[in-house]
Amino acid sequence: MAPTTRVEHDLVGDKEVPADAYYGVHTVRAVENFAITGSTIAQFPDLITSLAAVKQAAARANRDLGLLPPDIAPAIIGACEEIGSGRLHEQFVVDPVQGGAGTSTNMNANEVIANRALEILGHPRGRYDVIHPLDHVNLGQSTNDVYPTAVRLALVASLRRLGSGLGALATAFTAKATEFGDVLKMGRTQLQDAVPMTLGQEFTTYAVMIEEDRQRLDEAAALLLESNLGGTAIGTGITGHPRYAELACRHLADISGELVRPAGDFIEATQDCGAFVQLSGVLKRVAVKLSKTCNDLRLLSSGPRAGLGEINLPPVQAGSSIMPGKVNPVIPEVVNQVAFEVIGNDLTVTMAAEAGQLQLNAFEPVIAYSLLRSLTHLRAASDTLTTRCVPGITANREHLHDTVHRSIGLVTALAPHIGYAASTTLARRALATGRGIKELATETGLLTTEQLDTILRPENLTGRAPLPEVLTME
Amino acid sequence: MAPTTRVEHDLVGDKEVPADAYYGVHTVRAVENFAITGSTIAQFPDLITSLAAVKQAAARANRDLGLLPPDIAPAIIGACEEIGSGRLHEQFVVDPVQGGAGTSTNMNANEVIANRALEILGHPRGRYDVIHPLDHVNLGQSTNDVYPTAVRLALVASLRRLGSGLGALATAFTAKATEFGDVLKMGRTQLQDAVPMTLGQEFTTYAVMIEEDRQRLDEAAALLLESNLGGTAIGTGITGHPRYAELACRHLADISGELVRPAGDFIEATQDCGAFVQLSGVLKRVAVKLSKTCNDLRLLSSGPRAGLGEINLPPVQAGSSIMPGKVNPVIPEVVNQVAFEVIGNDLTVTMAAEAGQLQLNAFEPVIAYSLLRSLTHLRAASDTLTTRCVPGITANREHLHDTVHRSIGLVTALAPHIGYAASTTLARRALATGRGIKELATETGLLTTEQLDTILRPENLTGRAPLPEVLTME
Amino acid sequence: MAPTTRVEHDLVGDKEVPADAYYGVHTVRAVENFAITGSTIAQFPDLITSLAAVKQAAARANRDLGLLPPDIAPAIIGACEEIGSGRLHEQFVVDPVQGGAGTSTNMNANEVIANRALEILGHPRGRYDVIHPLDHVNLGQSTNDVYPTAVRLALVASLRRLGSGLGALATAFTAKATEFGDVLKMGRTQLQDAVPMTLGQEFTTYAVMIEEDRQRLDEAAALLLESNLGGTAIGTGITGHPRYAELACRHLADISGELVRPAGDFIEATQDCGAFVQLSGVLKRVAVKLSKTCNDLRLLSSGPRAGLGEINLPPVQAGSSIMPGKVNPVIPEVVNQVAFEVIGNDLTVTMAAEAGQLQLNAFEPVIAYSLLRSLTHLRAASDTLTTRCVPGITANREHLHDTVHRSIGLVTALAPHIGYAASTTLARRALATGRGIKELATETGLLTTEQLDTILRPENLTGRAPLPEVLTME
Amino acid sequence: MAPTTRVEHDLVGDKEVPADAYYGVHTVRAVENFAITGSTIAQFPDLITSLAAVKQAAARANRDLGLLPPDIAPAIIGACEEIGSGRLHEQFVVDPVQGGAGTSTNMNANEVIANRALEILGHPRGRYDVIHPLDHVNLGQSTNDVYPTAVRLALVASLRRLGSGLGALATAFTAKATEFGDVLKMGRTQLQDAVPMTLGQEFTTYAVMIEEDRQRLDEAAALLLESNLGGTAIGTGITGHPRYAELACRHLADISGELVRPAGDFIEATQDCGAFVQLSGVLKRVAVKLSKTCNDLRLLSSGPRAGLGEINLPPVQAGSSIMPGKVNPVIPEVVNQVAFEVIGNDLTVTMAAEAGQLQLNAFEPVIAYSLLRSLTHLRAASDTLTTRCVPGITANREHLHDTVHRSIGLVTALAPHIGYAASTTLARRALATGRGIKELATETGLLTTEQLDTILRPENLTGRAPLPEVLTME
Repeated sequence: MAPTTRVEHDLVGDKEVPADAYYGVHTVRAVENFAITGSTIAQFPDLITSLAAVKQAAARANRDLGLLPPDIAPAIIGACEEIGSGRLHEQFVVDPVQGGAGTSTNMNANEVIANRALEILGHPRGRYDVIHPLDHVNLGQSTNDVYPTAVRLALVASLRRLGSGLGALATAFTAKATEFGDVLKMGRTQLQDAVPMTLGQEFTTYAVMIEEDRQRLDEAAALLLESNLGGTAIGTGITGHPRYAELACRHLADISGELVRPAGDFIEATQDCGAFVQLSGVLKRVAVKLSKTCNDLRLLSSGPRAGLGEINLPPVQAGSSIMPGKVNPVIPEVVNQVAFEVIGNDLTVTMAAEAGQLQLNAFEPVIAYSLLRSLTHLRAASDTLTTRCVPGITANREHLHDTVHRSIGLVTALAPHIGYAASTTLARRALATGRGIKELATETGLLTTEQLDTILRPENLTGRAPLPEVLTME
Repeated sequence: MAPTTRVEHDLVGDKEVPADAYYGVHTVRAVENFAITGSTIAQFPDLITSLAAVKQAAARANRDLGLLPPDIAPAIIGACEEIGSGRLHEQFVVDPVQGGAGTSTNMNANEVIANRALEILGHPRGRYDVIHPLDHVNLGQSTNDVYPTAVRLALVASLRRLGSGLGALATAFTAKATEFGDVLKMGRTQLQDAVPMTLGQEFTTYAVMIEEDRQRLDEAAALLLESNLGGTAIGTGITGHPRYAELACRHLADISGELVRPAGDFIEATQDCGAFVQLSGVLKRVAVKLSKTCNDLRLLSSGPRAGLGEINLPPVQAGSSIMPGKVNPVIPEVVNQVAFEVIGNDLTVTMAAEAGQLQLNAFEPVIAYSLLRSLTHLRAASDTLTTRCVPGITANREHLHDTVHRSIGLVTALAPHIGYAASTTLARRALATGRGIKELATETGLLTTEQLDTILRPENLTGRAPLPEVLTME
Repeated sequence: MAPTTRVEHDLVGDKEVPADAYYGVHTVRAVENFAITGSTIAQFPDLITSLAAVKQAAARANRDLGLLPPDIAPAIIGACEEIGSGRLHEQFVVDPVQGGAGTSTNMNANEVIANRALEILGHPRGRYDVIHPLDHVNLGQSTNDVYPTAVRLALVASLRRLGSGLGALATAFTAKATEFGDVLKMGRTQLQDAVPMTLGQEFTTYAVMIEEDRQRLDEAAALLLESNLGGTAIGTGITGHPRYAELACRHLADISGELVRPAGDFIEATQDCGAFVQLSGVLKRVAVKLSKTCNDLRLLSSGPRAGLGEINLPPVQAGSSIMPGKVNPVIPEVVNQVAFEVIGNDLTVTMAAEAGQLQLNAFEPVIAYSLLRSLTHLRAASDTLTTRCVPGITANREHLHDTVHRSIGLVTALAPHIGYAASTTLARRALATGRGIKELATETGLLTTEQLDTILRPENLTGRAPLPEVLTME
Repeated sequence: MAPTTRVEHDLVGDKEVPADAYYGVHTVRAVENFAITGSTIAQFPDLITSLAAVKQAAARANRDLGLLPPDIAPAIIGACEEIGSGRLHEQFVVDPVQGGAGTSTNMNANEVIANRALEILGHPRGRYDVIHPLDHVNLGQSTNDVYPTAVRLALVASLRRLGSGLGALATAFTAKATEFGDVLKMGRTQLQDAVPMTLGQEFTTYAVMIEEDRQRLDEAAALLLESNLGGTAIGTGITGHPRYAELACRHLADISGELVRPAGDFIEATQDCGAFVQLSGVLKRVAVKLSKTCNDLRLLSSGPRAGLGEINLPPVQAGSSIMPGKVNPVIPEVVNQVAFEVIGNDLTVTMAAEAGQLQLNAFEPVIAYSLLRSLTHLRAASDTLTTRCVPGITANREHLHDTVHRSIGLVTALAPHIGYAASTTLARRALATGRGIKELATETGLLTTEQLDTILRPENLTGRAPLPEVLTME
């Protein structure tokens, strides 16, 4: 019977490793040491793939420099390619929340790659005298340049996905904006009736906000693509070949398809979490906007009879276990909650970044964990809104029409013609009597019916057409 | 002509001090070193008064122990009493945000007290050979026990004031709850019409929430009343008399009127910011509740014609520079903003507390600054709500009555009698046809008109009267 | 061949459900609607168990009141008991982050219980005409009283576990404090050498802090044990039997073994998230303290040669992929990161609590999710520290001894005898010359060698013995 | 005797205004309604100046369009110019924390400008029939376009000042980096000795970090320079002249000297707080970096005898009231605290931004208040660090030299030559025996003394010179 374990060795001593595991002693120690979240880094495929890309780029550079024996290099590169294409992810078993500044994640990658490379060359696992996880796979590298680079690349990949999801959401809002282009409604400031607008203008706003956020995401990505690869332990490049950094970076750009470039100061780049804080701030901004948008959707769809009742969200499930027929705005609600989570994660990132000391931030694992979750959850929330809510929204056109014509806010359009004080008197009278502005304005004799008709034309009220000169210039 | 300055000395060297200043060289250095907020600690009278109380308690204890010469002790105590009664506060000129763990605040107090005591005894300022700010006023003390104790006492004083302000607010809400006791309205969950309640019940909720918060405040106060006075530099009591701690604490309780008691472990107490974090958490809780309450008030008063329009807030100023006659919920809005500020301050406190190292938290000044501002601003916000908003709130009774009778939510009351599925059908039909639940329910024949009348009586719907057995048990 | 699905119906329409699923149509809709975290509520066994307890208590109360048919009640109660004992948890498949204020979680429970109860009685799944998920399992209940009550109970269960974990950690620190009771070292304030203490005193501090936090946790638990069960939709108790609330609460206390009691105002209790915010604040406090403690451990163990080097943490894994032999403080580091996560979660809870509107907080799911994760991760972090770090800590006694005897901070002990100014001069001279305080003090002639020996005895310096009267009174 | 008050009127009724006040009834109401912070908006001169610039630009545009009578326009413009040059700021008396979305600030400006313009034309205050605060000064404007535009401009002005302050700080660090260019020291990761670097490299890092932050600030400024001026109430431009927006914006750019440009979608721009959230995120980033830097300074200067003792901060005041001669890192400490405050403010901004509803964010006042304080305090903190700390820092060169030569971390440089496993063994032996790496390495015979000398040359260790090919390629 084949043995179920093999024995490996590290500075703590000997340790049994499952015989069929591609990972080794360092990974096993890490799994024992860090049992926090009940999950593994494999939950973030972008991270595993990016790790493999970095290791592959390093191996290619080392091969180019003649530092890796020619028989070993292809095996290592092949193993990395396999992982990059989605294989062996289940061998990445360390907890994403870990001490050691990502060392365990890097060790996990080194070991899996070494053992898979050994396998490719026909050797059994653990034959580290042939291919060593550190001397070969990690050659010229340190966790402190590999891990941040892989995390940054993983964040960019997840960010691209989020950006594309937000794009679809903006498109969905724009489609609604077109559909609702002629639906007149009351705009509100401070929850009080203000002046007219169209529902189309309101929905355009959501699309514009989202598009602006996408630009901020792209700017954040640019910062993340600075790499300290080649800086090794603290950025001084100790143990590294002078041409390694440039080569490895070029290979990484080639493998990832992203414009990875070397940081200007490797020592600074090794300890700096600025790009993470910046991205986190942008994700918080996205969350704030999405949450505001969903607050609006919930408010506008409140009712059906004792609420604002301006729009209807499509029913996607029964709303209550006790109130039959109730339908709730569950999709915007779940987006709100993701937003709150992302804002909380931003604080985690902030604290972890602030706590970095001297030449390294030891807390990058929780930064990566928080940002990757924020990106993933935001993408899921955005997709949910796009597919399960926005396209099915309908407008209560008649009700909206009524609110404009009953509104006191129309008086604002008269103020340039009759003055603020007279308009205030008119507005207070409307409130007290329940009567309409147009009717009361006619009575004052300050404006003719014809003038009022022009002033109160929807196009003029909502800024979609310029007011005729005769009126604006008087 | 009298000289305008005097020269004092510290470890940095000689330094000119304004001749008429009660403060001395240490204070002048601090003013130069810390010019951050443009304000002084005198903006917090509770802090100055509490500092004086601690210094007075220390002087009394030292007098009792025979450590302070009998001619000096009364002068020091007298100076402290004056400051405690509100005099000389303008001499407390250091910035509340300062390095040094409060040393500058303590030095400022030591110097003002020494010079005022000198003056009482007929000596000129600066005669520290007679009364020394450190050897006499600070005798047996350290910033590290004096400052936290004074801050804690100041927080308790401010907290008592906030508690009393919240009490008045709860009373105002209760008065409204009584006034609105019979006003039936639709309750809402997730902004969707749910089941009936009274406006009185809604306002009672606000009073209950606030009263619960007051209890949490009192609990937080109890934790703050633990003092490390006598622990001196790091809690080991170095340079202190063995009986000093107990004596000083007893005197402090006497002077302050609060149940100050010695901490169980002075070393722990000297570095521990737990009570600050706890208070901050409670203030955040108060902020969350006040904000939620104000969100509700703004929502319920939205309109006047295109909103929920359930209640009216009293107009306290014109709402707009462009929209004549517009009135906005400005009082709840300012309370919301104070709540956001308090929640931000809680984060500042949290980060400062976490950053403490080894035997002392060097960041207590920003903790004190944040908490004292939160307490003061919350009190102001609460008072503003009490005096400028709540008593003037009126209800749109007719509109509220209508919303209940038109509501689909009444169907919930039928569900126990006709089942969830049949009730759902009824509700969807009401939504589709625009008709009323009672009318549609009668048509089904599942319930008699008499039964419906009983089930739909306001008292039964809102839980103010138990349902008759005959109905509930069927 | 048996069909692989059955068809169920809700207000949205017909829907296929896996034939062997205990859950039903509402759960399937929720799974489709909410795909955010990639996980299910089953990751929180305390939540599932608590849900079952609440459902069981409700069924018992309904049975007592004669509202549930005698043949159905035992089946429902039996199904709940099974879930309470750990079975069928895999049937709880909804995402913890969900819209609808917990409705989907409640529906999931209703359906699983109904179908298991049907099975117990020999009926096939889906025979809701016999046992209905809403009319029977959810009888007299609403998500709005069931879900918060279950969440609170789950939080208390998790909190008890955390409390016990922290107790073990305090015990571990106390053991070390005893071991290090006689190890003299320099205490530090603001990272600068201050005055002597023992390493035992330092470790005692950590134990005391943790014990204080445990008390705060217990206080938070008391608030969580207030239940609004019986309040139904918004707290008015609509559809509920007048005696239900009291009965259900009593049964729930019996089942859970916790002192569950009815809230004083059900309407307030239904919308109030105060207890969640309070617990979150306390968890943040625990996080702050644990993080501070771990910061200290990392600082004290810095080195091995260029750091403080006061203590050694046990090596648990290799520290670096590039620096051979390096050992890092990975266990404290992972605890720090969990603390940052918990503090971030507190913000999520705060925002979700503040966002509640009118009669219900729609965002309780993310509150529950955040708090349950904080509790679970804190417990894991605490256990990790207890088992993998604290017991193996050793002290570098010789080095610590040296730092005290070379320290300038000893001068503080002389100040009460020679005054602050003379002591300052002595300290500055020591710093400039590199010489020792005792030696320099002797030269001044202000104190005899005998006096110096007494003053500088470790017991006197560290407050473990009172200074002899002769010295303190002079 | 001249009357001490005049009477003005608004929708609430008549109100007495101090006779000599330039402000009027709206301001007086606001002062009564909002008494929160005990301060006024005049504490932010940038805000007052920016308000005046916006009002001036509006008046110029209205003049160009012929909307303002030719006799009135110059008076209004003149009044604005005076305020812009620093006069009349004391007339801006409203609390920065106010309800009403900035209406009171706008009203305050309208009234002061109207009354000063009246005065210029020889009219008494209050003659609003001649020049009206709303019909003339606020012509074609709304608080909702004026206030955000003024706030954005004020933020940019403050941001420029911060940027310049940070520039000076970076320069100070760079000067030190040059001074310490040849000081070899141990770099640390995770507080453990890692590999050598120079103190110059360490200080360069701080300069680089700060310079990167300055770039982020400039990017944030660009976003703030989008203006919605001309959008009036909700962005639809109601009451506005079609050419007003473009004209006003051009004038504003001219007056302010900043590249103000019209937003692409005025409705979106009127409600959007994205640029505020973005700036806040960048300020948080600056705070995180400054705090990290100060943490390092405090750590590196810990001692004087029981700490790391690598550098000395200049003493700026006595450190302790009890410990004579103690000097504390008070300047970095105050910077840390400002950083914590800024991070707290970011949360306030985030919550306020998220709480915006529909067409306007009512909470911009607290956003402005928080951001302006963050900018001001950060600038003060940065200046304090620049002037009172960095230039006076000295290095303990001898001690630093020793730590490198005693360090075990040197073994890292050997790993590429003798392998990870052999190096680990060497490191552990060094730790156990207390002996040096070079000595032990020589004993192994794996490397010659000559090879060791080359590998361990400072230039090679710290990456300042490439390793000779002979070594790196082996």
